[in-house]
Amino acid sequence: MSMMQFESRNLSMLMDLYELTMANGYFLKGSSGDRVTFDVFYRQNPGGSGFAIFAGLEQVLEYIEDLHFAESDIAYLRSLNIFAPEFLDYLGRYRFTGDIDAFPEGTIMYPHEPMLTVTAPPIDAQIVETAILAQINHQSMIATKAQRIVSAAHGRAVSDFGARRAHNVDAAVYGARAAYIGGVSSTATVLAGQMFGIPVSGTMAHSWIMYFEDEYTAFRHYAETYPDACVFLVDTYDVLRSGVPNAIRVAREVLAPMGKRLKGVRLDSGDLAYLSKRTRAMLDEAGLQDCAIVASNSLDEYTISSLLDQGACINSFGVGERLITSVSSPVFGAVYKLAAVEHEGVTSPRIKVSEAVEKITNPCRKKVFRVFNAAGQAVADLLTLDSETVDMRSPYPYVDPEKPWKEAWFRDCTARELQHPVIRGGRRVAPAVPIAEIRDWCARQLAHEIWPEEQRFKNPHKHLLAMSRAYYETKMSMLGQYERTRR
Amino acid sequence: MSMMQFESRNLSMLMDLYELTMANGYFLKGSSGDRVTFDVFYRQNPGGSGFAIFAGLEQVLEYIEDLHFAESDIAYLRSLNIFAPEFLDYLGRYRFTGDIDAFPEGTIMYPHEPMLTVTAPPIDAQIVETAILAQINHQSMIATKAQRIVSAAHGRAVSDFGARRAHNVDAAVYGARAAYIGGVSSTATVLAGQMFGIPVSGTMAHSWIMYFEDEYTAFRHYAETYPDACVFLVDTYDVLRSGVPNAIRVAREVLAPMGKRLKGVRLDSGDLAYLSKRTRAMLDEAGLQDCAIVASNSLDEYTISSLLDQGACINSFGVGERLITSVSSPVFGAVYKLAAVEHEGVTSPRIKVSEAVEKITNPCRKKVFRVFNAAGQAVADLLTLDSETVDMRSPYPYVDPEKPWKEAWFRDCTARELQHPVIRGGRRVAPAVPIAEIRDWCARQLAHEIWPEEQRFKNPHKHLLAMSRAYYETKMSMLGQYERTRR
Repeated sequence: MSMMQFESRNLSMLMDLYELTMANGYFLKGSSGDRVTFDVFYRQNPGGSGFAIFAGLEQVLEYIEDLHFAESDIAYLRSLNIFAPEFLDYLGRYRFTGDIDAFPEGTIMYPHEPMLTVTAPPIDAQIVETAILAQINHQSMIATKAQRIVSAAHGRAVSDFGARRAHNVDAAVYGARAAYIGGVSSTATVLAGQMFGIPVSGTMAHSWIMYFEDEYTAFRHYAETYPDACVFLVDTYDVLRSGVPNAIRVAREVLAPMGKRLKGVRLDSGDLAYLSKRTRAMLDEAGLQDCAIVASNSLDEYTISSLLDQGACINSFGVGERLITSVSSPVFGAVYKLAAVEHEGVTSPRIKVSEAVEKITNPCRKKVFRVFNAAGQAVADLLTLDSETVDMRSPYPYVDPEKPWKEAWFRDCTARELQHPVIRGGRRVAPAVPIAEIRDWCARQLAHEIWPEEQRFKNPHKHLLAMSRAYYETKMSMLGQYERTRR
Repeated sequence: MSMMQFESRNLSMLMDLYELTMANGYFLKGSSGDRVTFDVFYRQNPGGSGFAIFAGLEQVLEYIEDLHFAESDIAYLRSLNIFAPEFLDYLGRYRFTGDIDAFPEGTIMYPHEPMLTVTAPPIDAQIVETAILAQINHQSMIATKAQRIVSAAHGRAVSDFGARRAHNVDAAVYGARAAYIGGVSSTATVLAGQMFGIPVSGTMAHSWIMYFEDEYTAFRHYAETYPDACVFLVDTYDVLRSGVPNAIRVAREVLAPMGKRLKGVRLDSGDLAYLSKRTRAMLDEAGLQDCAIVASNSLDEYTISSLLDQGACINSFGVGERLITSVSSPVFGAVYKLAAVEHEGVTSPRIKVSEAVEKITNPCRKKVFRVFNAAGQAVADLLTLDSETVDMRSPYPYVDPEKPWKEAWFRDCTARELQHPVIRGGRRVAPAVPIAEIRDWCARQLAHEIWPEEQRFKNPHKHLLAMSRAYYETKMSMLGQYERTRR
């Protein structure tokens, strides 16, 4: 079965070599009693957005549960002449034994907060880095881009047409999945429909038109085959002089006698604003007011927004390359950074100082909360130490790390913890969430919780990532200590 | 075995739904005696390059040979309630029966020439469109980007560090493959090394440094584990005050007593020009003239070129996100267009006119030649009708389609046909080429055949795509005929 074959891939060898050279080092040092905590977070919203959408968790969980090294993997690693034989024996028996906590998939997220945290022995935590990042980076990027495009379409349906320009097969299918989470209505990619239960859509290419002796004949054959689902591609020769007139003729001569209506026409080149208005007028005049106009051709949120501003008569959009590659921002930069080390029962926080201020990490085992006002709007996110409890029944003091001198309180607010256990001792403890629920969850947050000001297309409001006083003081004292040792 | 599992995926369902709705239409119409010819070509070089590199052919051939629909695939398609039961029965027995011709993988290619051509019954030709394009688009894009980056590094080694920012798993591994074809020296991605025999490289992440109580201890442990392969990451705390001094100390205190040398240090943040010069001076002063400096951190051809212009002391580069996503040009736009239809033994050409001039296709079953002068330099590519023979022993008249009034001849030239048979009757007729040979072939063309003027970084010379007189006249007469029917 192709679906099973597709999903049964062992991805355990998808890692950077340094994960293994470090793991071999931890193994030889005898680190197995330690537990380390790594946070996954990103530093900057993509493409000028005010937020991003967390996606890819389900594939991370499947990967973690399946993580194992086959004999052929061990043989390959042995051939590199880098690793201790005892370490390779250990890898042959290896299963992931750590814990993972994460935001629910589809959650709106912001920079510098951990949407996923791994707490595990050093080897376990290290070897999952690359695969977790590749999955989360890709799907979060596409979900975020999709949401922008869907938002620009103002309620009109958007379909994913991107497979042929995706960065290979996975980018097409997991991209389609992420785009659906971000709000597109359907995908043209059959394998994605099959794997994830996403609605599929599609009708004809230019080749169908060109195969027949003329455009009318091509439309007629299609109408005879699919009388209930005709969306004719009308730009192969000339939209207004040939495509639309032939579509109308087939609607009258072939469909009408069967009691059927023409569902739509698709425009795939030329000026879509001009052509759609002229097409609309011609269809209306022919009594085809219910025939939809679908537009495609290198569309994205900017072009869609501009077309609609000009009153383009477009009922739905097919969006390909610019969605499936997130062309405006094709790198989503989530990172995987050490936050704490537990050694002989004592946990000590870790911070990366780096040469660049924006690369300083948030240390410690921690909790992340979303803080809501009485109207249910998300006013901030909040980092606290793992050991803190948050009670907002009375005013809750917090620090804005960009204005630490301010005395600030959350008043009449409630707090929702964002991370939940998903893996414990290597086994999954959170059930798979149906994709329709993930998509709904994403849409519900945007409709009810996330400020419209943060959803603005350009220069959105920046969401506050607050810190508890104890958390802020811990971070500052680590930086101070580092600064003193540096002198 | 993970490698087998990975590669044994059935990708037959990776297609746009419209390939299947059209295929069902061809099936019901009874088109099986026809043969259609589709050309794969692209319209614009990516990122301002003067050419692109053809990559991904091996994966296309594996896909074609494996193409089949499993019972679960048919069951899924049946559930869509779109397809005729006889068509689904046919799909259940389906194997690809057509022919494919293609450029050798690693060939330098230019816009508007077919690097791959499918000639097959309409159903066969249609259902392979999406998978062929996704593979060729992705790998050609990455190979082309990699070549630019490698070229900017002027002989210094470039390693692929991109997996974590790739658009999912395939983009990491097939991207690593394509980058190797384009000239990178190694990849950090273990799975790519295992699958394709690409050299792998990598040493340590910041987490290794942060796991230990201090940087010196972290370096010392690494040196004790890998005395022959130490490349220390020196920017976790402070490159010049902590990282480099600690690296030198470990070279003296740990490596030197074992008779070993420090192989390198890696800079991953801060100003790489400044830091590399200061680091070089400190290493040299410590007697570590042979210790290499490796640089990483969002590098691409532009930053590398600029760093080297400023005399940065960098011996090799690790390039991640900007390579593996081809960030400057993340869409490679190869298309798959109908060029001819053979019906009842008569072949008639097809042309797509479109609303946009740049989208007009090159019609007909055709041949593509690369034309060389007496010095062996590629002066042009040439399209001819399939039926023509090309003899350049005497001056050969051609048409420059942008200056058709010019009387132009190739004199003292030779012509090499670029497409070769790779699939005949659905079976592979070209053996798999070792990746090292593909990489060498690519490098040899750039060293000996392709003009330096076309390899210029900015505003390169535009390669001429010439046409034989017969080919040009055929295309013009088709456009003329179209124009007349349009009036």
